[in-house]
Amino acid sequence: MAKNSYRVAIVGATGAVGQNIKQLLEKRNFPIKELRLLSSKRSAGTKIKFMDQEITVQEAAPEQFDNINIAFFSAGGAVTKQLADAAIERGAIVVDNTSAFRMDADVPLVVPEVNPQALDDHKGLIANPNCSTIQMVVALKPILKNYGLTNIIVSTYQAVSGAGLAAIDELKTQIKQYLNDEPMAANILPAGSDKKHYPIAFNALPQIDVFEDNGYTAEEMKMINETKKIMEQPNLSVAATCVRLPVVTSHSESIFIEVEQDNVSVDDIKTVLKDAPGVVLQDDVTTQTYPTPLEAIDQEDVFVGRIRKDLHNDRGFHLWVVSDNLMKGAALNTVQIAETLISRKII
Amino acid sequence: MAKNSYRVAIVGATGAVGQNIKQLLEKRNFPIKELRLLSSKRSAGTKIKFMDQEITVQEAAPEQFDNINIAFFSAGGAVTKQLADAAIERGAIVVDNTSAFRMDADVPLVVPEVNPQALDDHKGLIANPNCSTIQMVVALKPILKNYGLTNIIVSTYQAVSGAGLAAIDELKTQIKQYLNDEPMAANILPAGSDKKHYPIAFNALPQIDVFEDNGYTAEEMKMINETKKIMEQPNLSVAATCVRLPVVTSHSESIFIEVEQDNVSVDDIKTVLKDAPGVVLQDDVTTQTYPTPLEAIDQEDVFVGRIRKDLHNDRGFHLWVVSDNLMKGAALNTVQIAETLISRKII
Repeated sequence: MAKNSYRVAIVGATGAVGQNIKQLLEKRNFPIKELRLLSSKRSAGTKIKFMDQEITVQEAAPEQFDNINIAFFSAGGAVTKQLADAAIERGAIVVDNTSAFRMDADVPLVVPEVNPQALDDHKGLIANPNCSTIQMVVALKPILKNYGLTNIIVSTYQAVSGAGLAAIDELKTQIKQYLNDEPMAANILPAGSDKKHYPIAFNALPQIDVFEDNGYTAEEMKMINETKKIMEQPNLSVAATCVRLPVVTSHSESIFIEVEQDNVSVDDIKTVLKDAPGVVLQDDVTTQTYPTPLEAIDQEDVFVGRIRKDLHNDRGFHLWVVSDNLMKGAALNTVQIAETLISRKII
Repeated sequence: MAKNSYRVAIVGATGAVGQNIKQLLEKRNFPIKELRLLSSKRSAGTKIKFMDQEITVQEAAPEQFDNINIAFFSAGGAVTKQLADAAIERGAIVVDNTSAFRMDADVPLVVPEVNPQALDDHKGLIANPNCSTIQMVVALKPILKNYGLTNIIVSTYQAVSGAGLAAIDELKTQIKQYLNDEPMAANILPAGSDKKHYPIAFNALPQIDVFEDNGYTAEEMKMINETKKIMEQPNLSVAATCVRLPVVTSHSESIFIEVEQDNVSVDDIKTVLKDAPGVVLQDDVTTQTYPTPLEAIDQEDVFVGRIRKDLHNDRGFHLWVVSDNLMKGAALNTVQIAETLISRKII
């Protein structure tokens, strides 16, 4: 028999991440027998090109998942809650891009380079982690595996595209207003659903998503909790401060880590990262080589540089980690989860 | 006798910091009997208004310091090295804005809110610290004093104005090029004197100043070494990652600290910061109140918010600290040093 081929659905097919998933399925030659593009009633009827076909977007409904093997959900947590069960009951495996189920004990939260084995225990629903979490665990897993990890303290430098296309427009509009000496209109950032809005142009906002009762933002708590779950290190000390920047795409992270082993060198860290899956080392200060968000755009990898040993703590290291938040941080990881389901013969 | 009044010189009077010093002397009614504005030969002859006088800028030369009580130097390290001795020999106290002498053992490195007593031992030359150092030590000194400090890990979010007016122009030009779909021309940042240049618009550059042999940048080493000297804590563990942003003015800092005492609460930290000199607490997540660089522009204070206890380390806290890098980070601290020389009756 020829290579297996699958019936695939994308829920939220007209959205930014849904579009990226469709493009990656094409680009990576994902083995597709049938692709169903699903959306809200409002976007149903849209025609979208896939390979040499033109597919008409249908309104998402339970019966649309008949015979589907893999369903990618990226239409918000409410839609996943409403329709994922129907898809699973019909035999589909759901790969969910929202945060709705990530921390559920029986939902695998997967970055294929880090914890592919978690897929083996799936119960129909698999969660794709938060963008800023994904790039951090891809960079740190090889270090954990070789030298152990006891402590992570991260400060993020996050792009506005993580808040959607409207946030990109808001940044560009504010920049024009600023350059014309007009007041800047802020309506979306830091969090569309929150009360107060601040301009992002020429600014830095220490709030991503809403605040939780403990004074941390939801984004910070996602990084903390998801990292422990994906790395399978419930006792790992993780701290995060998440900051939004006037950058369109790619998140950067200044990360301090403490390893478990003594006498680990910067060269040891570089050696394990050089061969790590999904990681590209860009680290040579003699040629000013380090990752930047602009250069990471549209790239699939996680870029690591500025690796230094702490000057006081022999087990402490500092790293600068950059990745395209729309690529590895979202659609790419989702598609890689599906590819891993195939390579592990789960479907 | 009436209040003392002083003969003051500004070296580098036509530069950005020199201009700010002159304006602050006016605004703060610094007791001036005579103001001499000095510059390179090229800028000599410029006429500058001070209070109700018009002062002609003179070329800086040893005899210009005859009878001067206080000389503010902000014309680069080479000029300080060339002329500071001549000023001191003539009886002036030199307050130097460059990094040339900051780490010299017999040069006080002073932030008046933090270590005014260091001025008492001066030998003619007093150094003004690095901008990103000043705002951090103003925020952390009250915590050190009350609860002790064992560890500081800072990631900075620094404005382009720290690299001069040409860097601001470069940012604005690049933004226009980007919005017009033209390639961005990079000639100044991350460091004018370094070989490679990266665009700063829509980017984040993990390099400020040049790299040292240990893989840290000069800016990072300044923060590390100057913090220990100003806080008089030679054994304090300090780590810094310094990053330049597409922000025009005001530096932000994500700071992790460990205090020495057990059982310190966030409220304890807020209480000591609320009454601390030069500090304004902006910290209420229920109203999304926290400092931002845009709102700190032209303000004299250091703004602190997002104070949280670490979720794993009972002695660990996270803070977000913002200040105008051209104000408290440069000219204001310089003028405050001179004011403190007067209040301590050193001159």
